[in-house]
Amino acid sequence: MKLRIGVIGSSTQVSAAIKRIAEEVGLEIAKAGAILVTGGRGGVMESACKGAKRGGGLTVGILPESSLDQANPHLDIAVTTGIGYARNYINVCSSDAVVSISGAGGTLSEIGYAIALKKLLVLVKGTGGATDVIARAVEFLEGGHAVVARDAKEAVKIILKKTIRHPSLQRVRSFRLTS
Amino acid sequence: MKLRIGVIGSSTQVSAAIKRIAEEVGLEIAKAGAILVTGGRGGVMESACKGAKRGGGLTVGILPESSLDQANPHLDIAVTTGIGYARNYINVCSSDAVVSISGAGGTLSEIGYAIALKKLLVLVKGTGGATDVIARAVEFLEGGHAVVARDAKEAVKIILKKTIRHPSLQRVRSFRLTS
Amino acid sequence: MKLRIGVIGSSTQVSAAIKRIAEEVGLEIAKAGAILVTGGRGGVMESACKGAKRGGGLTVGILPESSLDQANPHLDIAVTTGIGYARNYINVCSSDAVVSISGAGGTLSEIGYAIALKKLLVLVKGTGGATDVIARAVEFLEGGHAVVARDAKEAVKIILKKTIRHPSLQRVRSFRLTS
Amino acid sequence: MKLRIGVIGSSTQVSAAIKRIAEEVGLEIAKAGAILVTGGRGGVMESACKGAKRGGGLTVGILPESSLDQANPHLDIAVTTGIGYARNYINVCSSDAVVSISGAGGTLSEIGYAIALKKLLVLVKGTGGATDVIARAVEFLEGGHAVVARDAKEAVKIILKKTIRHPSLQRVRSFRLTS
Repeated sequence: MKLRIGVIGSSTQVSAAIKRIAEEVGLEIAKAGAILVTGGRGGVMESACKGAKRGGGLTVGILPESSLDQANPHLDIAVTTGIGYARNYINVCSSDAVVSISGAGGTLSEIGYAIALKKLLVLVKGTGGATDVIARAVEFLEGGHAVVARDAKEAVKIILKKTIRHPSLQRVRSFRLTS
Repeated sequence: MKLRIGVIGSSTQVSAAIKRIAEEVGLEIAKAGAILVTGGRGGVMESACKGAKRGGGLTVGILPESSLDQANPHLDIAVTTGIGYARNYINVCSSDAVVSISGAGGTLSEIGYAIALKKLLVLVKGTGGATDVIARAVEFLEGGHAVVARDAKEAVKIILKKTIRHPSLQRVRSFRLTS
Repeated sequence: MKLRIGVIGSSTQVSAAIKRIAEEVGLEIAKAGAILVTGGRGGVMESACKGAKRGGGLTVGILPESSLDQANPHLDIAVTTGIGYARNYINVCSSDAVVSISGAGGTLSEIGYAIALKKLLVLVKGTGGATDVIARAVEFLEGGHAVVARDAKEAVKIILKKTIRHPSLQRVRSFRLTS
Repeated sequence: MKLRIGVIGSSTQVSAAIKRIAEEVGLEIAKAGAILVTGGRGGVMESACKGAKRGGGLTVGILPESSLDQANPHLDIAVTTGIGYARNYINVCSSDAVVSISGAGGTLSEIGYAIALKKLLVLVKGTGGATDVIARAVEFLEGGHAVVARDAKEAVKIILKKTIRHPSLQRVRSFRLTS
């Protein structure tokens, strides 16, 4: 199975600048041959999926609803969980590494899960919200699982470099970097 | 997004005959251009995934664990939920229609969910266990959502025929039959 | 902690006869000094809670919603899960033994979980629906975990008798029968 | 039904000072006649439950496991969910207001959920970890749902004062302050 990289962030009120960053992260994930995992909705999730599809990648959306009503149009596979925001836990469990861009309370819950599960978490600095709150919190940066990236390209580069030996990837079988 | 067909059934102690049926169901799903959704483990799930890959299809496994330890080797995408058997609900929510083959308590819970959610449920007769218990229960066959099929080919054929107008598919956008 | 007995069954279209049985089961549970666990809604769940409160017992309702909108008026504690029918799994996990009365697809999913988790499951015969479908299915009665009771009194009596040595209760600390 | 107040915080490596604060919060909750909801485990959760029982209150523990292995000894009711840390979402959904004391990633996920669900969230300042990270994050304090308290007594006082009109309590029926 391929490496699964999650992208978390705001579903609404996303600026053009944030959308560009999310789209570039998605594109880089696709170019690396990894699967993109998101919460399946709009905003950062939609832009990341759009970028991944532009790069010929595979996109998975894990939605709170049991229906496809809120699914963004760039999903190859929609997991319509029906369990509300408890799905945030599944988003993180199903990602071998996570990139965080901006975000409010929902994103903060996913950041918390990534830290609790010792997943590699990359916070894209300067994107505001939950991402920047944690990016300046030394309490959470000391363990080495949460790291700060300057931009989209660096975020994915950090993951590709670190995932070769990261514990959360010990179970990922036969992952091959394609770039 | 493509049509998503779930296959549910025993994860252990599966006879060669049941494996053949599950594999054929998976193959027919792939040939129809639909996505195969399973619980991602062994037994019926593994055989269905094997069949789908033989047909060039896409396989999604929604696992109880947060790790890939129990994943079968034929999954394109593993959703490692970490929520135990509560994931049975997600399996059904994430399937536009469900094929049931044999099965014990876990499969029975998924049959129950399929009935509760008014999903199209096809029970492959003669495969034993939970599937046959419900296949002879008029209480659950009257609504028209649960139907009995004689074999693998008929099971998938029923779904392809019914899903064109079935309510659980009203949200499936741009589904095209490829055969 | 006290013994926790779950009662599962239809939430709607419940006859006066079924309500009487559910209420008596709730009353017997309270008289035994056990905690009543239900899905927190109407129908069988509401009648069981009403009976338990009449007997001075403690009632827990584990609801699908994140709000109290669908809670019945006899709950001491409402766990508003927000995870939809995935909460059916929690109902069973949180019950040391389960009594099943009538029921449709949702109840069938809980019966399936009780069987999968090897919980002591007592099916009150003659109450119809999912309960009677399983009460006549030898496939599920052989293991000794699912048993059939003639009426409300016998259902609770079986649990009190069996729970003293049943594996699902090995973790119940300091349980004392009060009758 | 009575007001439900959640207490979240570290399950391990909790100092004597933090335990004292958690115990006092539990005691104040009990004295107010509210139900204490926690994650059911050790550390802050255990101390809060201990305090609540000292005050004659009712304690609910919503555990990740399907067993009682990790339950603290001060629970009146254990909800053994079996859904892992996805239960963090249920903890918050099942609390009308939440008090946060110290904490790591798991607590951070619950803080995130409290913010996402617009629950009244009181952060006890100076307790370290996730609580202090958010207590100094203006991004999350502006909405008026997350507020900072100096100590245990003030934390519960804020809740009792605010919950009379707080939106998350519109559904709490017949709540009466007992002090």
